[in-house]
Amino acid sequence: MSKQVGIIMGSKSDLPIMSEAAKALEELGVGYELTVVSAHRTPHRMIEYAENARQRGIKVIIAGAGGAAHLPGMVASLTSLPVIGVPILSSNSIDGWDSILSILQMPGGIPVATVALNGAKNAGILAASIVGAFDAKVAESLDNFKKDLKQKVEDSAREIELKGWKEGLDD
Amino acid sequence: MSKQVGIIMGSKSDLPIMSEAAKALEELGVGYELTVVSAHRTPHRMIEYAENARQRGIKVIIAGAGGAAHLPGMVASLTSLPVIGVPILSSNSIDGWDSILSILQMPGGIPVATVALNGAKNAGILAASIVGAFDAKVAESLDNFKKDLKQKVEDSAREIELKGWKEGLDD
Amino acid sequence: MSKQVGIIMGSKSDLPIMSEAAKALEELGVGYELTVVSAHRTPHRMIEYAENARQRGIKVIIAGAGGAAHLPGMVASLTSLPVIGVPILSSNSIDGWDSILSILQMPGGIPVATVALNGAKNAGILAASIVGAFDAKVAESLDNFKKDLKQKVEDSAREIELKGWKEGLDD
Amino acid sequence: MSKQVGIIMGSKSDLPIMSEAAKALEELGVGYELTVVSAHRTPHRMIEYAENARQRGIKVIIAGAGGAAHLPGMVASLTSLPVIGVPILSSNSIDGWDSILSILQMPGGIPVATVALNGAKNAGILAASIVGAFDAKVAESLDNFKKDLKQKVEDSAREIELKGWKEGLDD
Amino acid sequence: MSKQVGIIMGSKSDLPIMSEAAKALEELGVGYELTVVSAHRTPHRMIEYAENARQRGIKVIIAGAGGAAHLPGMVASLTSLPVIGVPILSSNSIDGWDSILSILQMPGGIPVATVALNGAKNAGILAASIVGAFDAKVAESLDNFKKDLKQKVEDSAREIELKGWKEGLDD
Amino acid sequence: MSKQVGIIMGSKSDLPIMSEAAKALEELGVGYELTVVSAHRTPHRMIEYAENARQRGIKVIIAGAGGAAHLPGMVASLTSLPVIGVPILSSNSIDGWDSILSILQMPGGIPVATVALNGAKNAGILAASIVGAFDAKVAESLDNFKKDLKQKVEDSAREIELKGWKEGLDD
Amino acid sequence: MSKQVGIIMGSKSDLPIMSEAAKALEELGVGYELTVVSAHRTPHRMIEYAENARQRGIKVIIAGAGGAAHLPGMVASLTSLPVIGVPILSSNSIDGWDSILSILQMPGGIPVATVALNGAKNAGILAASIVGAFDAKVAESLDNFKKDLKQKVEDSAREIELKGWKEGLDD
Amino acid sequence: MSKQVGIIMGSKSDLPIMSEAAKALEELGVGYELTVVSAHRTPHRMIEYAENARQRGIKVIIAGAGGAAHLPGMVASLTSLPVIGVPILSSNSIDGWDSILSILQMPGGIPVATVALNGAKNAGILAASIVGAFDAKVAESLDNFKKDLKQKVEDSAREIELKGWKEGLDD
Repeated sequence: MSKQVGIIMGSKSDLPIMSEAAKALEELGVGYELTVVSAHRTPHRMIEYAENARQRGIKVIIAGAGGAAHLPGMVASLTSLPVIGVPILSSNSIDGWDSILSILQMPGGIPVATVALNGAKNAGILAASIVGAFDAKVAESLDNFKKDLKQKVEDSAREIELKGWKEGLDD
Repeated sequence: MSKQVGIIMGSKSDLPIMSEAAKALEELGVGYELTVVSAHRTPHRMIEYAENARQRGIKVIIAGAGGAAHLPGMVASLTSLPVIGVPILSSNSIDGWDSILSILQMPGGIPVATVALNGAKNAGILAASIVGAFDAKVAESLDNFKKDLKQKVEDSAREIELKGWKEGLDD
Repeated sequence: MSKQVGIIMGSKSDLPIMSEAAKALEELGVGYELTVVSAHRTPHRMIEYAENARQRGIKVIIAGAGGAAHLPGMVASLTSLPVIGVPILSSNSIDGWDSILSILQMPGGIPVATVALNGAKNAGILAASIVGAFDAKVAESLDNFKKDLKQKVEDSAREIELKGWKEGLDD
Repeated sequence: MSKQVGIIMGSKSDLPIMSEAAKALEELGVGYELTVVSAHRTPHRMIEYAENARQRGIKVIIAGAGGAAHLPGMVASLTSLPVIGVPILSSNSIDGWDSILSILQMPGGIPVATVALNGAKNAGILAASIVGAFDAKVAESLDNFKKDLKQKVEDSAREIELKGWKEGLDD
Repeated sequence: MSKQVGIIMGSKSDLPIMSEAAKALEELGVGYELTVVSAHRTPHRMIEYAENARQRGIKVIIAGAGGAAHLPGMVASLTSLPVIGVPILSSNSIDGWDSILSILQMPGGIPVATVALNGAKNAGILAASIVGAFDAKVAESLDNFKKDLKQKVEDSAREIELKGWKEGLDD
Repeated sequence: MSKQVGIIMGSKSDLPIMSEAAKALEELGVGYELTVVSAHRTPHRMIEYAENARQRGIKVIIAGAGGAAHLPGMVASLTSLPVIGVPILSSNSIDGWDSILSILQMPGGIPVATVALNGAKNAGILAASIVGAFDAKVAESLDNFKKDLKQKVEDSAREIELKGWKEGLDD
Repeated sequence: MSKQVGIIMGSKSDLPIMSEAAKALEELGVGYELTVVSAHRTPHRMIEYAENARQRGIKVIIAGAGGAAHLPGMVASLTSLPVIGVPILSSNSIDGWDSILSILQMPGGIPVATVALNGAKNAGILAASIVGAFDAKVAESLDNFKKDLKQKVEDSAREIELKGWKEGLDD
Repeated sequence: MSKQVGIIMGSKSDLPIMSEAAKALEELGVGYELTVVSAHRTPHRMIEYAENARQRGIKVIIAGAGGAAHLPGMVASLTSLPVIGVPILSSNSIDGWDSILSILQMPGGIPVATVALNGAKNAGILAASIVGAFDAKVAESLDNFKKDLKQKVEDSAREIELKGWKEGLDD
């Protein structure tokens, strides 16, 4: 399976969050690579990563970072591939506002596709939907994924309706 | 030119902002359609739009809305295509926080690719980058667009360096 | 006792909060139903629920959701019954601002009666007050409920005044 | 037409906002009264107003106030009728956060049905939906109102689709 | 010692915070009374308390409350005595912003002297400084209190300077 | 009339706001002085002002400042008189949050009686209420002031009730 | 005069703000250079600028940017010179929070010396104070600058004290 | 090694945070002193400290404080040395916003070089970079420090690339 999504993060400490993107892509059958690239500690590595991604076959880059999170935006400035940014709630963050705004509020010309705080799972699904826009098999995986989501809600609804919420609370 | 991007907005009053997405797509040579779809006033129209988009050949949907902005997220729940959300600063908005958070903070399973407040131009560029990930010609347009951005900065830098900033202030 | 209030929530995980609405309605003698309906995972189920509520005899809908909380507003767009929205502080929420603003800042034409963060108990009381505006027996229950609230404050005041606050701190 | 909704506001300067509630009720065929009642300047008048509202036939109270907005919550503490609170963006307000939070974040036992900042029109519609839950004629007015909202969106969509958005921008 | 300061709070659960005001007044030699008065649960008790405070010899009222905190402002509307408001961080508060803004942002004509979040100790000191503006003995207590604060800082400074901060960290 | 209140501000540009405190004190019959004292530009002048205020007969100090507003807190650290802080919305302020938090969130031991953003009028009234707690004549002025506030609300209420709000809107 | 301070900004549109830094340095007798360098539009130019600054004799870099402001932090990652960041309130900014947090909240290891929103003048003074820590002549300029600030406050104080604030308001 | 950096903090309780600045300076080979100085509890000690720092050979002052944090700004008003401010997240802080804004938003003329919330380590590095702008040996230490940061990222990247992220998660 060719690697179509590149997942990068500013620090190995972001792995517990960012691995959710990898898991989602595995579940949806999309090939990916994952490594650590820091905008502030390895700026030259970041440039090399971003500028070479397309020719290595990457279609989408997912970049996660916390605090003054410059990685997603800087990568977006260095490639014309779509870049998905994941704001991460790190220690000493101000409730996540810093990483959200550092990623979301990009200037005209350099967009970053921002997902929710700690939303690495959704970043993986979004990357799959981008691939799936041009790949019927991935689109089908996404449709099945959505059916599962729906089924789980309907199951829990039926259970609560049958047994009553007091029982539901005890689960 | 086939229509690959669908641009929708909650109200015609959002057109001055959302037309920036259309302009960007025109500049980058990506076909699009544009119309008004309201999550709250035309929920059935929204469902029909979202559920039929893929089979009409749409690859990416751009949805803009202000206030409690439900359109991007609801469309994302109804399609497996990538959905780009544009938070719009409407009157009686609380500095845009309401539309940003209503679009960005989607639950696990249903991502929206959120861009900056009023960032419709960037939404257009992001949609083009998604198309361009699978279309060499659009990728080339994006690269040229980036070169232009760079050139403009370098030109203004050279001008200020030559003439001095006091002259620059008078422009 | 006919079911006059419909309580719905986006996920079974919201039940510990939302069951407070059910408890309040039981205490005030108002019939209700409770189930799970997700705007994003079961949009068609949501439409069906909202569009049929009135003919099933429901007078008020209470809808709770967290993050980018679209359930209350979408239900309000699909019925002319009054809809009470309960913002829920979910994990990865930004201090609850996301759910509050997603529910509160509805556009003109589609109101949601928003209560405090995690305020499901108050949503139940508000629903009862709506029923009670047209039902003397429920109004009486509400008056008694208010008298109890008052009595508890007066009791604790008397206790502190008699025993002193130092004793009160030790309770 | 009997007066079923009481509209009050903290100051005559709130009238340009709060009159939108009156207009909505007129349009929907619901009788109302409107006056000025200040929690901070006329506390005794407020008590009298709130405690007598039910016996005068009022079914819902709409209360609007800005800044540290205590009127809706204090009225709610003095009646078992449903109270709708309208946060108003007054001068020296901090972007409206003060009035929103002062009205929304009521303690357990004393709910206020809060609408959007400056959302007096929605307060009127919400009051009508409360009346309409028990009055088929008002419910029908609400359904027609919703149909109009839908029609307007569909008309503007058709116009943009036919003429193109560039023409739409010039309107 | 005559009671010159009245300390009230919306609920007995506020006592752990509000007792700090009482402790400060005891330390500074100012007589006080302390009880529970709720704006929302006992509005008539609140009115009686506020309107009678001056004739009972009270010079300053300290009122603490959380969430949509109306007690300090409502008391201020009912007396011409100075009222000190203590915002309390209660459960389901939004980081305390709700109580701060509900107390601080009073309209023109009805001031509340607001202190920091959970700042009941400072409310006690402020009340003492008000009494001390007209009472030399209390003023002297305040001066001694300030000297103690200064002494403690100087002692810890000397200790760190002598022993070094590494030792200081181990304390 | 002896000067019992000292009004200071960080810059002459704060005078349009801070003069409201002076006007309120004049209306309420309380003597005052007014000058410019900057914490950051004239720290020694500030110390002298604060340390000598009590012996000059001042009972309350009102200090207004914008941005990182240190004047009220620093003055409070230098005197045991009550200090009222007025947060001022200056240019380049972040919606006033900076001055509010710089004044309000004082550490334990050094309270500042904070009023609303730009609330200089209320600072004047609060200072008068402090003087009035020990001076029957000022207390009477305050009571009359409150009666006037009440009368104005009742007059505007009567006018709207008689003429209807549509006429009221035209005023 | 050798150029010791490098002033850069993300766009020529930032010049009206950033020129205040240049003016301050001129007034304080510190040599500087000024140009446009964009993190997102000219990333390679940024790298070259930052990596060569020290060997060209620059001692301090002042970098201003708005929105998701990555320039100051990225420059700081590329040099060991001190970098001063100026958050700029640009259009579509969210009250400046985005640029403030993008610049301030840098991760451990890569500091940026952040000044107030639009605080380019203070950035210039701060750069001068850094030079002045090692240059007695610049230190003297700074001392004189502070004396001027003090003098202006004292002059306006004296004027208000002499003429009264009513006259002051008319200036 | 001469003491070139003065580290001060408002309270000994800030030592666990502020000692990070000392550690960074030790690691980078820059001499420092560290003590406790409180703006509010020891204002005269603060003045003496700030006014004498330069003649004692200090080149940079690092000042940390929480809540309404006046120490950095007041010290900056009393010296022409560069002052680095460290906002500290103390108990009863409002998520750190109070200390950040109290330190960052200084008025024109009196800059404070603000670092991230609890960013004492970065304050130490920033102070070293200021010294290093004029001292080749310290500059070399900083360059080595940056190389170490880079090396650590590259090592963790290589490890994850080799072993896979699933192994990385288990570390």
